[in-house]
Amino acid sequence: MPPNDPALKSFIATAPESHFPIQNLPFGIFSSVEDATLRVGVAIGDHVVDLALLADADLLPLPSEVFRSGSLNQFVALGHATWRVTRELISHLLRDDNPLLRDDHTLRSAALLPQEEVTLHLPMEIAGYTDFYSSKEHATNVGSMFRDPENALLPNWLHMPIGYNGRASSVVVSGTALHRPKGQLKLPDSDAPIFAPSRKLDFELEAGFFIGQPNALGDPINIAVAEQHIFGMVLLNDWSARDLQQWEYVPLGPFNSKSFGTSISPWVVTMEALEPFRVASPAQVPVPLPYLQEHTDNGFDITLEVTLKPAEDSSGSSVGQVICKTNFKAMYWTMAQQLAHHTVSGCNTKVGDLMGSGTISGNTPDACGSLLELTRNGQNPLTLTGGAQRGFIQDGDEISMTGWCQGDGYRVGFGNVVGKILPVQ
Amino acid sequence: MPPNDPALKSFIATAPESHFPIQNLPFGIFSSVEDATLRVGVAIGDHVVDLALLADADLLPLPSEVFRSGSLNQFVALGHATWRVTRELISHLLRDDNPLLRDDHTLRSAALLPQEEVTLHLPMEIAGYTDFYSSKEHATNVGSMFRDPENALLPNWLHMPIGYNGRASSVVVSGTALHRPKGQLKLPDSDAPIFAPSRKLDFELEAGFFIGQPNALGDPINIAVAEQHIFGMVLLNDWSARDLQQWEYVPLGPFNSKSFGTSISPWVVTMEALEPFRVASPAQVPVPLPYLQEHTDNGFDITLEVTLKPAEDSSGSSVGQVICKTNFKAMYWTMAQQLAHHTVSGCNTKVGDLMGSGTISGNTPDACGSLLELTRNGQNPLTLTGGAQRGFIQDGDEISMTGWCQGDGYRVGFGNVVGKILPVQ
Repeated sequence: MPPNDPALKSFIATAPESHFPIQNLPFGIFSSVEDATLRVGVAIGDHVVDLALLADADLLPLPSEVFRSGSLNQFVALGHATWRVTRELISHLLRDDNPLLRDDHTLRSAALLPQEEVTLHLPMEIAGYTDFYSSKEHATNVGSMFRDPENALLPNWLHMPIGYNGRASSVVVSGTALHRPKGQLKLPDSDAPIFAPSRKLDFELEAGFFIGQPNALGDPINIAVAEQHIFGMVLLNDWSARDLQQWEYVPLGPFNSKSFGTSISPWVVTMEALEPFRVASPAQVPVPLPYLQEHTDNGFDITLEVTLKPAEDSSGSSVGQVICKTNFKAMYWTMAQQLAHHTVSGCNTKVGDLMGSGTISGNTPDACGSLLELTRNGQNPLTLTGGAQRGFIQDGDEISMTGWCQGDGYRVGFGNVVGKILPVQ
Repeated sequence: MPPNDPALKSFIATAPESHFPIQNLPFGIFSSVEDATLRVGVAIGDHVVDLALLADADLLPLPSEVFRSGSLNQFVALGHATWRVTRELISHLLRDDNPLLRDDHTLRSAALLPQEEVTLHLPMEIAGYTDFYSSKEHATNVGSMFRDPENALLPNWLHMPIGYNGRASSVVVSGTALHRPKGQLKLPDSDAPIFAPSRKLDFELEAGFFIGQPNALGDPINIAVAEQHIFGMVLLNDWSARDLQQWEYVPLGPFNSKSFGTSISPWVVTMEALEPFRVASPAQVPVPLPYLQEHTDNGFDITLEVTLKPAEDSSGSSVGQVICKTNFKAMYWTMAQQLAHHTVSGCNTKVGDLMGSGTISGNTPDACGSLLELTRNGQNPLTLTGGAQRGFIQDGDEISMTGWCQGDGYRVGFGNVVGKILPVQ
């Protein structure tokens, strides 16, 4: 049976709502108390499979050093065929009808670690980070608020996936707390800026993809093969200080308002695992230029939710309140289009480049992927259970994002990306 | 004598106009026909000193692998004291009154290679690339042309060193030819963009600096110590496709118009070597916020020239025509201010981060650091010797930038950064 078959079962039992059934098998980097080495793991149910140990046991045809190099980059650089074959071999090893690992109790107890006992790290060494702006609803909402509601979309928006280079150094893995940033902001009643902690700290719900197969300088990626360059996807929280952003962004784009931290989920869900959830993306009018025209469905049906756990919550609950429900399939520009556009002038990519989708907003009020949109720039604060109100993020608040593809009786999920905001340092 | 003493002489003779006398000693990466290993070298006159061989001979107290790791990063990561001591030791070894290397003919012929016989490579593995916009004259010129001549500077410009994240992957070393980029551009008589080769290809004369001492996420760099984080400087050509840029840059900044290639000079001139050429930078009105206030002179007196060698030039001359003469000391925002601002919201830096100054323009017509300004967006083409006219760069044109600090009878120079534009691919 192929690794995406809904009928596949693993000897590691998973509930229907688990994000990590045998149909998923996302890759990540973990360490454990017993072994602080950062190594490649694959999530299965509540466990992590240690690929270095599987390689040591000759169950994977790769040198185990590839899985002990600190990030996924060395493994991913081996190419598309290696990613696919490795996932197939792991799928085979984890099947309930394969006794090889299932009945080898010594290896099984060494190579299958409970997720709650491991520490997850940044999955890839991120060479470059690009952030797009590909939700029509988000761009329209922002344009309406800050520019002209009658001409909310700028003239270029419908012609190309607008994007900008972000700051790769400050991309952090889920669970990393961040301090509220300080910076320049201009109050409405003043001509001069002040230096102060951000008063309009926000999240942005995004998905990100990692480049697995690079292209050379001067050699653009054709849209027909663009997805073959993508290793897999993560969830991404593009933390944004709206007041810093509004003052600094003209004419060269966001800078300090974004560079204090960007959080990603630890498990990279492969494009192979996402394949059954491919859907058509929204119709594009006007028809884009030929280099952006797609002849396959390049959207993906990924249900997304954002929860906010306010600082006031003393219930001890680990769960916040859902404040956004949306879906990645609403994105106007696809990942293939983003990559074709990014490279069309000759820009090269590297293994480990991260590309963010831009805020994912839908067409209903609760489908907005940022507080900026959910609260109309703080003017209509959210009232949370317990009475707390939020225009923007307060110190001690925790934002969690999750996402999954719904299969027939199983989910291919991303886990979550969580981050807490600490007081200014 | 300290390594900056104007009276110092090396047994490698250098003319007064040489960029690489013993007072400079810039670091770079080279390989040779005999040994393709990328290794660290220091320029002295027309020669390169192979630091790996000096370390093998126990003349430098560092393991020679540090100098054979492919870039300067490992060496630079050893810290400020190591850079300074290494430069002092090399200065001592190269002095005309020190027989140690001078009279060891075997070592000398192995470790001192003619520059014309080596290949120079990208000096550092560039983690992140940030480009600022710190010349008041340049920002004023651009604002006058594309926005409002009466309000050429945007409201934020006098309050912070505006910058944006550039694309690190496409930074190339001097000598790398680049193809004319293709992309979306909108002609004045049309509402819709076309896809075409750029018709307004330009250079931007900039200086760049490399981060040598990183800061951690959430831990801003104080302006008083900012320069200690800088390893050294290079010249930088921020190639720009003006027509792509004008169509794409709103609201998130330049993207494809810049990411097809950025050229840098191969020799990193250390901040120690530049120390004698420190000058006051222009007075800042209004006084910036405290985190940007300087109490030392943080400008540098660096004479700069750009030459254009047109495709039509069949003279065989290797020299182009000077089309810009300016000086780095005119920059409004200093490197220390750029770095303090970059990190003030908590952004971390890494060893090997490259930061560009932005186009360096002075206050006379021939002191403009781009064709956009020199030709008023192509409206007033330059007429070159031989009659060729240039509004923007044509296929086959070569742009060369050079720069030096003038000492008393010697120069501390940058060499040059050269690049030729090839036809669209």
